[in-house]
Amino acid sequence: MNIRIRKAIKEDCTRMMELIYELAVYEKAAEEITVNFDHFVDAGFGDKPIWWAFVAEQTDALGKKEVQALALYYIRYSTWKGQSMYLEDLLVTEKLRGKGVGTLLFDALFTEAKEKKYTGIAWQVLDWNEPAINFYKKMDAVIFDAGWMNCTVHF
Amino acid sequence: MNIRIRKAIKEDCTRMMELIYELAVYEKAAEEITVNFDHFVDAGFGDKPIWWAFVAEQTDALGKKEVQALALYYIRYSTWKGQSMYLEDLLVTEKLRGKGVGTLLFDALFTEAKEKKYTGIAWQVLDWNEPAINFYKKMDAVIFDAGWMNCTVHF
Repeated sequence: MNIRIRKAIKEDCTRMMELIYELAVYEKAAEEITVNFDHFVDAGFGDKPIWWAFVAEQTDALGKKEVQALALYYIRYSTWKGQSMYLEDLLVTEKLRGKGVGTLLFDALFTEAKEKKYTGIAWQVLDWNEPAINFYKKMDAVIFDAGWMNCTVHF
Repeated sequence: MNIRIRKAIKEDCTRMMELIYELAVYEKAAEEITVNFDHFVDAGFGDKPIWWAFVAEQTDALGKKEVQALALYYIRYSTWKGQSMYLEDLLVTEKLRGKGVGTLLFDALFTEAKEKKYTGIAWQVLDWNEPAINFYKKMDAVIFDAGWMNCTVHF
């Protein structure tokens, strides 16, 4: 597979946004994406970053490298637990799914979260997304909690 | 009622943590609080703040001021919507509930979120918490989404 996991750099942003669109088109929700590309780059690599990411970079037979998956997180703050990592997006391009890339990204996230002394990692999964839920069930120590509703106001 | 809503300052942290404990004791979950007080203060008022808060300060008949409610948030990042405000905690001390303090805090959050050009505000509510859900239903434009499970790994 020839995959290397590394921290995202500014130059990855175009390809990252392409992967984000790929998934949104698959979910028939591309029109929901209203984020501005310059804001996306600035929020990750400006003076005050508020998101961080790992990417999975594949090298093909000709030596060409391309980012094929990403895990993007921000820091949440719980008044009970302190700082933890909130995994906002984990996505793998369609042709590379089921090959363990998600596990490699999770390994990198866990290592990073422990190094930074975060108290844990949290994310959400759609309650009908059985493949994803089964994937998370195979991981150690994941606590599932279905008793919450998300409330959102968009301006 | 003599309530003033203002931004939290460092000196509020002791009373804020007291209110956080008051609620946790009420929920019979005080032992779940593992956050360290110095970390709490540093995460809000150190070199790199990751939470911000509004407090409701009450002045009594003798002119004594005390914080009786708080709304604590951090900035989330959505790859679809960009930066938004995530309301982690909204809590009002028991004797002041039902008097409109929550609404005053929400007003301050909305004003702040619009000034900072966030794309919206999000929070979660327990799906059995009818008084809270009814309160949010009276607000404008709240979208409720129950189809997600929270996944958490604590280290």
